[in-house]
Amino acid sequence: MARNLGELAAQFGCELVGDPEVTVTEVATLANAGAGQLSFFSNKAYLKQLRASKAAAILLHPEYADECPVAALLSDDPYLDYARFAAVLHPPITISASVHASAVVSSGASVDSSAQISANVTIGEDTVIAQGVHIAPGVVIGPRCNIGKQSRVHANATLVQDVTVGERCIIHPGAVIGCDGFGNARSAEGWVKVPQVGGVRIGNDVEIGANTTIDRGAIDDTVIEDGVRLDNLIQIAHNVQVGAHTAMAAFSGVSGSTVIGQRCMFAGQAGIVGHITICDDVVIGGATMITKNIVEPGFYTGSFPGEKDRDWKRKVARFRRMDDLVRRVSVLEKKVNKTRD
Amino acid sequence: MARNLGELAAQFGCELVGDPEVTVTEVATLANAGAGQLSFFSNKAYLKQLRASKAAAILLHPEYADECPVAALLSDDPYLDYARFAAVLHPPITISASVHASAVVSSGASVDSSAQISANVTIGEDTVIAQGVHIAPGVVIGPRCNIGKQSRVHANATLVQDVTVGERCIIHPGAVIGCDGFGNARSAEGWVKVPQVGGVRIGNDVEIGANTTIDRGAIDDTVIEDGVRLDNLIQIAHNVQVGAHTAMAAFSGVSGSTVIGQRCMFAGQAGIVGHITICDDVVIGGATMITKNIVEPGFYTGSFPGEKDRDWKRKVARFRRMDDLVRRVSVLEKKVNKTRD
Amino acid sequence: MARNLGELAAQFGCELVGDPEVTVTEVATLANAGAGQLSFFSNKAYLKQLRASKAAAILLHPEYADECPVAALLSDDPYLDYARFAAVLHPPITISASVHASAVVSSGASVDSSAQISANVTIGEDTVIAQGVHIAPGVVIGPRCNIGKQSRVHANATLVQDVTVGERCIIHPGAVIGCDGFGNARSAEGWVKVPQVGGVRIGNDVEIGANTTIDRGAIDDTVIEDGVRLDNLIQIAHNVQVGAHTAMAAFSGVSGSTVIGQRCMFAGQAGIVGHITICDDVVIGGATMITKNIVEPGFYTGSFPGEKDRDWKRKVARFRRMDDLVRRVSVLEKKVNKTRD
Repeated sequence: MARNLGELAAQFGCELVGDPEVTVTEVATLANAGAGQLSFFSNKAYLKQLRASKAAAILLHPEYADECPVAALLSDDPYLDYARFAAVLHPPITISASVHASAVVSSGASVDSSAQISANVTIGEDTVIAQGVHIAPGVVIGPRCNIGKQSRVHANATLVQDVTVGERCIIHPGAVIGCDGFGNARSAEGWVKVPQVGGVRIGNDVEIGANTTIDRGAIDDTVIEDGVRLDNLIQIAHNVQVGAHTAMAAFSGVSGSTVIGQRCMFAGQAGIVGHITICDDVVIGGATMITKNIVEPGFYTGSFPGEKDRDWKRKVARFRRMDDLVRRVSVLEKKVNKTRD
Repeated sequence: MARNLGELAAQFGCELVGDPEVTVTEVATLANAGAGQLSFFSNKAYLKQLRASKAAAILLHPEYADECPVAALLSDDPYLDYARFAAVLHPPITISASVHASAVVSSGASVDSSAQISANVTIGEDTVIAQGVHIAPGVVIGPRCNIGKQSRVHANATLVQDVTVGERCIIHPGAVIGCDGFGNARSAEGWVKVPQVGGVRIGNDVEIGANTTIDRGAIDDTVIEDGVRLDNLIQIAHNVQVGAHTAMAAFSGVSGSTVIGQRCMFAGQAGIVGHITICDDVVIGGATMITKNIVEPGFYTGSFPGEKDRDWKRKVARFRRMDDLVRRVSVLEKKVNKTRD
Repeated sequence: MARNLGELAAQFGCELVGDPEVTVTEVATLANAGAGQLSFFSNKAYLKQLRASKAAAILLHPEYADECPVAALLSDDPYLDYARFAAVLHPPITISASVHASAVVSSGASVDSSAQISANVTIGEDTVIAQGVHIAPGVVIGPRCNIGKQSRVHANATLVQDVTVGERCIIHPGAVIGCDGFGNARSAEGWVKVPQVGGVRIGNDVEIGANTTIDRGAIDDTVIEDGVRLDNLIQIAHNVQVGAHTAMAAFSGVSGSTVIGQRCMFAGQAGIVGHITICDDVVIGGATMITKNIVEPGFYTGSFPGEKDRDWKRKVARFRRMDDLVRRVSVLEKKVNKTRD
């Protein structure tokens, strides 16, 4: 979508240093941008690329304005403003209100006439699809679900049953929401399945990554609050609550009944055990396992960075012999203290 | 499904302390239960909620009978009995024998007339679907598969080929069973694919989580024995054998040709290398990597709990300097022993 | 497919010790092989099975020729030659050029007449399907994709949009390619989605595992070079580049904009942070997190093998008290040095 710089600057309240009549139609990286392309600079590592950029215009912080060889859009938070500008230049695809002939919509479902239901979609009984929703091909939505306005469910995702999705949510391909939680009671004859009867409630403006799984509650619902961002391949177990605006990177997993606060951030492979509480504003490092309540905001870690195998193996060997080292120190202490006596 | 307490107590051999004519229709948590709802108490942490509960009846151990403000169903294992009671109140959905018009069933497939084949399902040549099986929408079952009685395959799951599933199994949405194992032979020109020609054999009463993947064998079959429980997002590589009644939590992974015993339990992110054997009754802790045979039942771990980043970083720094510490202790030992000589 | 040993030996340049007229029709393990079955021996651990094998013929290194009780096919690399022989005996299924009546192919898509488009497939606008491609049931391919000759996309996989796949690639079931990257800019009101506008470019002879996810680029493309092998349940974030012939095992994850060299090998659960570079020929151990550039080929690790819980817990306790140990050593050093003064 073509826009001129003057309009864009006015719309988002950025100061423009350059010709307001210049038109941009899409975004590009500093290195690759050319005529008609907008770029941004928010990381000093790319200063060289900024200086050499051939973009039509560049979003950047005022302190770097002098380094910008082309039209500059000045912003206190260039990455945030880039997100907004890019959304104007690259709007989500327009949906065309329709139900594809191959879609199978239960007679008891309610689909708003402005929604787009694509090929090979299945929609169950008592499910409600609101205005402007886009259901991509191959999606299966079971009974008693509710998809809020302007939400989008990508291809081959599955909402099993009793899943409520708020407005403007994006559910990426292959995500599974509302599957049974992992509830098993031990008996002498083996595991007895504990029926899972809860649902999943998802707030507004939530994004759920590809092939991520969110279990239905065992009894009460699993809850994902407004603005949560889940990356691909995440596991949210039954009865977890994820607080508003929390973001989790790929392979994060939260075990059953754990309550996660608001505005938390989990790096990849963060694992949280069940039945604990993580307060607001907690950041969890990569590959870190959290086993206890966290009651104080801050940064928590528990993983080692990899290194050359021979160096690592030597450290591990030391670690394994630490008992011995402690014993040697104790012996020394006794000897030295005796000597001094 | 409505049942009165007297019937339920009799059916499962629980002693009822209360009015046998009271009816329950569904389960609820201690905190939220009201009239017509059954709850259970199996964790002392919820004693306060037990005392205040407004449930119609509560399953609990006899030693807490006095604490129960409402009708009590006494059980030596309230969680196990809860699982059984809940299954009565919340039976699996009834299937309606049918093949949906949009399903594509190969002419060489055999589908029992009591099975339900849902919309947009594909069933391959020489595949057999037994009595009472439910295949949900979007499922793809390739050639030469066999789905045993009363089993259920949830939406958008894929059984690639040569997959035998026992009776009363549940395969959750998006699971992929029978995909090629990761077999690659190195050549001067790059990897050469090693054809994967085995199948997957799954016993009775097995449950396989959403988006979990189970590879077909390289030559012989991959085997999942009776009563196994796999959570979501698990990887079972080619030729793995998982012993009966073993349960694995999300993100567990087992590499090729490893043999896992019976009644093992793996916490989340447990990773087992290939070509080893884990004996019966082994419990693996969260985020633990097992690299050698385990021949003795018991609990095995190898992960650190996360903590405040600054505390953790200090420990890691100490760990990195352990060589130096050992050297200092050696120097001290020499000095002290000399001094004493 | 039946072949006689003489033909096979000649085709792959192996010396045959045995009757060239003997026919083999399929592969089998040393332990289970019988008449008409070909096996291989490449691991000394199976020497006993070699000696007792009833296979029709066995591929093995010349130094073990004397141990072979049946026809021997001598090879310097028996596993590699096994891969080639097995591919002859077990060729990929033949496709039948056709577009299934239930497939939904956009009017603007181009499907070669030799391709097979299976049931319930959706193909988007401006997508090109080349000669000999097989698209399995339930696959969704969005707009502007390009699938190269002889490639195969397995059931229920999703290519969201702007995905280019080279020739002879295999994409396993449930894989999701071209989904949005995890791009979020923080604002006072919560996360603002950063539009993801790049595509994914996949080279020739690439294999992508079941339920693996590969994000589209944020601006430029995500790139997977020729011959790459990705196992199941892997996450490749936006703008990652994976060099030719690199192989990654299950649960490996690569964060955004990281560049991985050629011929690297990642064991399971390897996690690579974003915005770094890993040079060619790097091997990453299991459950290892890499947080910095790697500029030297070699083997890198950072994980501990699991052990008996009580042993592990004792070590962890020592680790936690290392500050104290260091202090004790410092005290000792002062005392000893004073003593000696």
